[in-house]
Amino acid sequence: MDIPAPQTIKAAVQAQRGRMEALFDQLRKDGLDEPGVSRDPYGPGEQRAHATVTRAAEALGLEIGHDDAANLYMTLPGLDRSAPVVVIGSHLDSVPHGGNFDGAAGVLAGLATMTALRSMGLTPACDVVVMGIRAEESVWFQVSYIGSRGSLGSLPEGALDVRRIDTGRTLADHMRDCGGDPAALRAGARHFDPSHIRAYLELHIEQALSLVEAQRPVAICTGIPGNFRYPDAWIEGRHDHVGLPRRFRQDAAMAGAEFAMALDALWAGYEERGIPMACTLGRFHTDAAAHGLTIVPGSFHFSLDVRAYDEAVLTELEDKVGRIIEGIEQRRAVRFHPGPKARAAVGVVDPAIKAGLEAAARTQEIPVLHLGSPASHDAAAFGAAGVPMGMVLVRNVNGSHNPWESMQTEDFLDGTSILIQWLTTVAI
Amino acid sequence: MDIPAPQTIKAAVQAQRGRMEALFDQLRKDGLDEPGVSRDPYGPGEQRAHATVTRAAEALGLEIGHDDAANLYMTLPGLDRSAPVVVIGSHLDSVPHGGNFDGAAGVLAGLATMTALRSMGLTPACDVVVMGIRAEESVWFQVSYIGSRGSLGSLPEGALDVRRIDTGRTLADHMRDCGGDPAALRAGARHFDPSHIRAYLELHIEQALSLVEAQRPVAICTGIPGNFRYPDAWIEGRHDHVGLPRRFRQDAAMAGAEFAMALDALWAGYEERGIPMACTLGRFHTDAAAHGLTIVPGSFHFSLDVRAYDEAVLTELEDKVGRIIEGIEQRRAVRFHPGPKARAAVGVVDPAIKAGLEAAARTQEIPVLHLGSPASHDAAAFGAAGVPMGMVLVRNVNGSHNPWESMQTEDFLDGTSILIQWLTTVAI
Repeated sequence: MDIPAPQTIKAAVQAQRGRMEALFDQLRKDGLDEPGVSRDPYGPGEQRAHATVTRAAEALGLEIGHDDAANLYMTLPGLDRSAPVVVIGSHLDSVPHGGNFDGAAGVLAGLATMTALRSMGLTPACDVVVMGIRAEESVWFQVSYIGSRGSLGSLPEGALDVRRIDTGRTLADHMRDCGGDPAALRAGARHFDPSHIRAYLELHIEQALSLVEAQRPVAICTGIPGNFRYPDAWIEGRHDHVGLPRRFRQDAAMAGAEFAMALDALWAGYEERGIPMACTLGRFHTDAAAHGLTIVPGSFHFSLDVRAYDEAVLTELEDKVGRIIEGIEQRRAVRFHPGPKARAAVGVVDPAIKAGLEAAARTQEIPVLHLGSPASHDAAAFGAAGVPMGMVLVRNVNGSHNPWESMQTEDFLDGTSILIQWLTTVAI
Repeated sequence: MDIPAPQTIKAAVQAQRGRMEALFDQLRKDGLDEPGVSRDPYGPGEQRAHATVTRAAEALGLEIGHDDAANLYMTLPGLDRSAPVVVIGSHLDSVPHGGNFDGAAGVLAGLATMTALRSMGLTPACDVVVMGIRAEESVWFQVSYIGSRGSLGSLPEGALDVRRIDTGRTLADHMRDCGGDPAALRAGARHFDPSHIRAYLELHIEQALSLVEAQRPVAICTGIPGNFRYPDAWIEGRHDHVGLPRRFRQDAAMAGAEFAMALDALWAGYEERGIPMACTLGRFHTDAAAHGLTIVPGSFHFSLDVRAYDEAVLTELEDKVGRIIEGIEQRRAVRFHPGPKARAAVGVVDPAIKAGLEAAARTQEIPVLHLGSPASHDAAAFGAAGVPMGMVLVRNVNGSHNPWESMQTEDFLDGTSILIQWLTTVAI
């Protein structure tokens, strides 16, 4: 089949501006939970997004399918239906009161790709599958990559039994509500044999502000950070009267504050040395059942996420965090209870895909950055399973995981053009 | 009337050991809310304590009365019923999940004093009034000294309209439930003309550990700290994605941590210079409705209590706290919203009463410390109204405002002996 000219591809993508904006608007309405949107995974918010995307895929005549983890597959059949497939995916859940683009942009980019291929009269060599992935946001179940790892049969031990932080119900229960089959997953079922995926591509908004700062619309991702996490840590001190002299205190909140400042200084040091990492105390709080204006806090709770692009750096950071804790325990007569630890491997981008995406951007004359993610993405789960993966990151104002994230349609269409340009070189 | 020998007083007090322990046990049962006791002010917990104390006072034949703020008065009539009275008082509420002795010990010491006077056949020269004070613990309504200031007609503007932090109902509503008359208080009613109080005495557990450290049973209080408070402050930053690089963050929790560490360092500096003060961030927390493992905190809430024994030191501290906040706002691109500020004056102990209590302790051969409170007490409200006041502090293990506070009956009886010895020199 002839490969269309770059201008033809650009025009086919630009033609979808109105349709895509309408779809984003509908998704916003589906998830509205002021301020922002809440597409709770395996719950009503995510379900409504799946319904909207499914209707759009049906209108395109794509094949619709689901797996035992209730992921959504929308397939454009290729010439050789038995050949390894290309997957274009992202997730349809959001954080509570999040933005409209984190996740959804990648699924809609997949649909835009399908429409453009159709409008140009192209049939791919292999099946191209748009995947609407479940439950990527680990804030809810505190397990990462649930949908993607569910599709690959690589969910961690015990994941189906964790409880959603707001409902208190298990992942298995939530999954069943949405048509999934957790028993099959427990028995080892998987949707994908990784060797049957030729490439996994994901378009996602950038969740930092590097593209805004550099005034570029799109970045080609160079890597996805791994992390270690303590989702449910706490510090045990002693509740005391507000008048207690300093020398007698075992103030758990002050210990938490010292911990935060030590992590901040650690990070600043790595930053100075040019080693990318991040650490976040997302939950950081005294105990609502016991705290008060006139009480020295005797307990303090926090979650910790530490991420870096290099496994050796992560190991070094774990060691340093441990030593910081030891020092504070001694100085402040408190005890840290780290609770369960989670670990996610660094996500390595396939060099050939990265080079291909860069070439596609040049062909499309779109100026790109080369950028570490810095967020976690489902692409990392595919990478960890041995699937060649790559990502396109799209400029996004106002940060992410908040109601104000904002992606320009123009930038989104640029990213999609790169995806299609790349696709024509490998699957047409 | 002849003043009894010190040994007679000691024996009359020691004879009440069993009776007092039974009363403390009953109060613990009344307030039990594991862990610890909750005697919620103008609510069921405090009401049960009032009922138990009232029964004990009735059994002693004391006159029972109440005022518009629903404080409890238990009076032993004196020879001259029109003479200025001596008040022995403390409060019957507690913090949530607090200990059994904070407040209650002072009311029971009053009852023990009455019993001892009776058993020695003594009738005081003036009325001696045991006062069961309402709502001292400001953690509930975030207003200090409600009962004592209610009795003196010195409640601050708007206090009757504040809402209890757990029930959301106003102080006026709660007061009415317990037989009070908030409308009368609004109209200016008061129970006490301060000039008609000869002295206000309060026995209270020490809420630090200085007596434990010094191995003394009792201290004579040298002063009660004043404070400034921000009960409902918060920091506005921006919620962002966990991967956001450090330079882009407006992390409200990190700003809170830096604030806490700066206050801790400020305090350490005053401590080194031997100037007593304390500061406490009792509530210190990310926003439960918005925080999460993978979200950079965009809002952070705290309460602040800063206390010192010198008005000039308090003013200086307010200024320094303001400058700390300015620095953090600039460095971290956040905004502090301090909310309403409360201020309580330093409570000055009457020198004659202090000297009298010290002399009484010598007569009773009880070794005492001289100690700043360091907690706030109703005595400060009487002091502020011009009433000569003094306090006896009793050793207490394990700190206070927690379930584990622990006072030995022996120490309690020593403190009570000092009160009675003092009383015989001024009112017999």
